Amino acid sequence: MVPTSSAPETAERLRRAREEADGLDLDAVVVTPGADLRYLCGYAAHAMERLTALLVPRRGEPLLVVPRLEAPMVAASPAGALDLELVAWDETDDPFTLVADQLTHRLGAAPATLAVGARTWAEHALGLQRAAPGARLELATPVLDVLRAVKSPGEVTELSAAAAAIDRVHARMGEWLRVGRTEAEVGADVAAAILAEGHVAVDFVIVGSGPNGASPHHELSGRVVEPGDLVVVDIGGELPSGYRSDCTRTYVVGGRPDAETEAWYAVLQEAQAAACAAVRPGVTAASVDAVARGIITDAGWGEAFVHRTGHGIGLDTHEAPYIVAGNDVPLVEGSAFSVEPGIYLPGRHGARIEDIVVCTADGVRLLNEGSRDLVELPG
Amino acid sequence: MVPTSSAPETAERLRRAREEADGLDLDAVVVTPGADLRYLCGYAAHAMERLTALLVPRRGEPLLVVPRLEAPMVAASPAGALDLELVAWDETDDPFTLVADQLTHRLGAAPATLAVGARTWAEHALGLQRAAPGARLELATPVLDVLRAVKSPGEVTELSAAAAAIDRVHARMGEWLRVGRTEAEVGADVAAAILAEGHVAVDFVIVGSGPNGASPHHELSGRVVEPGDLVVVDIGGELPSGYRSDCTRTYVVGGRPDAETEAWYAVLQEAQAAACAAVRPGVTAASVDAVARGIITDAGWGEAFVHRTGHGIGLDTHEAPYIVAGNDVPLVEGSAFSVEPGIYLPGRHGARIEDIVVCTADGVRLLNEGSRDLVELPG
Repeated sequence: MVPTSSAPETAERLRRAREEADGLDLDAVVVTPGADLRYLCGYAAHAMERLTALLVPRRGEPLLVVPRLEAPMVAASPAGALDLELVAWDETDDPFTLVADQLTHRLGAAPATLAVGARTWAEHALGLQRAAPGARLELATPVLDVLRAVKSPGEVTELSAAAAAIDRVHARMGEWLRVGRTEAEVGADVAAAILAEGHVAVDFVIVGSGPNGASPHHELSGRVVEPGDLVVVDIGGELPSGYRSDCTRTYVVGGRPDAETEAWYAVLQEAQAAACAAVRPGVTAASVDAVARGIITDAGWGEAFVHRTGHGIGLDTHEAPYIVAGNDVPLVEGSAFSVEPGIYLPGRHGARIEDIVVCTADGVRLLNEGSRDLVELPG
Repeated sequence: MVPTSSAPETAERLRRAREEADGLDLDAVVVTPGADLRYLCGYAAHAMERLTALLVPRRGEPLLVVPRLEAPMVAASPAGALDLELVAWDETDDPFTLVADQLTHRLGAAPATLAVGARTWAEHALGLQRAAPGARLELATPVLDVLRAVKSPGEVTELSAAAAAIDRVHARMGEWLRVGRTEAEVGADVAAAILAEGHVAVDFVIVGSGPNGASPHHELSGRVVEPGDLVVVDIGGELPSGYRSDCTRTYVVGGRPDAETEAWYAVLQEAQAAACAAVRPGVTAASVDAVARGIITDAGWGEAFVHRTGHGIGLDTHEAPYIVAGNDVPLVEGSAFSVEPGIYLPGRHGARIEDIVVCTADGVRLLNEGSRDLVELPG
């Protein structure tokens, strides 16, 4: 298990989580396996029905509650290097009562509010609620999003390494994406390359050829790539550190785009570049969306841009900040997110251009590097 | 997307879910992406921050609420063949209010109880709670577990195919598990073989060599396999249909076990076989656990068997019924679960034997077939 941060950095995250919780009048933050847990203590546990939970009470020390059979795994993880109390439960114990008792002990009273991770399973959240019937259940996002949405230099280095790894996969696309092959065949090769280029897991592989490119979250199908197809390829994976890649390029295979396609693709490319260039501290997430949407709408293609402009990225592929109308959170140095407008023409085809960008002290840094042109592959 | 069941079978599941909910006085069952959703309507969606939810109100027809950009994916999935109303929401809509309004419309009043899937994310469960403040939030497990824990003949066929696929991987273990290689190197080869043998995803690869075998959920490490090591190999993946494999065998590499190891392994093997043989309709889950635990405890190794005997398996690797003390649910024809006792000696090594079994009309069928002996590999 590769640490995502040094032990002192992780300890500082725990301290800040407690401080934020206290400021928000939350008696305890409870996070379960997933990015929140890994971020706060370095333990990359699998989500399971057996409760694993990091408890961060507003008073007293944090502790990690784990199934006894997994206790050795904590010691072997970066969390083992933290001065973090470990409480193990046996197969026939009730871990929720254990959590409630531990929190009551530390707080000096039963918790009145319990803030759970956004992706904590309902069976765990409601199990906690049952064991602490006097507590109001809330989301821990106001605590975790504030921390996780601002990347440290070390995290930016990891995101940059992830971007470079997925760029290498896109650079090899001509090896696999050819006329006569199915999306599924192309996708299997791309998935293998995602692993070969340094990821430990494939998060998603979208190969949307021809009309399938008009479905933004289409994945793979048995459709055979035809001469002249536009093909949307949106791919991502997870580095050993847990940080994610996510990059979309659109290809044209064994043919050339017609004049109308070239015209709207140029609009999309202009919109994507302008949205990236608009990023700097103090600008809101919504205004970055508005830049991309404005250019596409002014050119008459607004109805075809059916999704938000982007999403934050880090230990999760989708996390705060979301680049969407109505999200008036200002970007800050260390904000990291995708800029990925698209144009979708149902029944015909679609295109999307996606880069991961980081807001710097005075502007923006694009982490992905490959060409944003409509890349022509020989077929 | 491969259907897990025919459209009429899926429609029948929806009908039964509504009937169970009504019997339990639950106004609506709400399930989000994951095995519950795939089971009830055939849609194998990714879990995402954007809400996708199948609503099954106790009165009125079920409906599927999806982000508009994913609506084409539903039509392309087996859910598209059902007579299921689809309601799409746009990026700046509040999908929780939409759900509450739709339920109120169907029920003729605001819902008083909302039952959410066990693995629904807290941000979605609490979002629904916020939009339906008069509703008591509960788990849908009493509805879904009753249905999903009893496998149809078609589901048993899928589980059997999954077991055969993972058996083929174990049969090839000598190709990869050798003295001088690291667990991580062995694991990478095993993962590739899991895919090559017909799975679409690798769920987990545990290669616990020597002392790492004493940590039941250890995964992979840089430890080099040494002559005479016991190595616990617990592996599983997902078939195109969504059904899962999960099988553990313990190997001894480049040496022979000593007499003490042979003695306790024989106890483990006897316990696993006896627990399998104890399975028949009407026997409780707890009593299957007691059979394995009794044999191991009577032989003096009870402290070393630190986990439950097994877990149900289907569209999730771990699901009801859990084979654990205190679970007095009686097994029925179609109950499918693992039988996997283990003995763990911290600092030295461990062993586990795991088969997937199905309760039949008058006994049990073991789906895995490879030898349960301590398999000697040449090293």
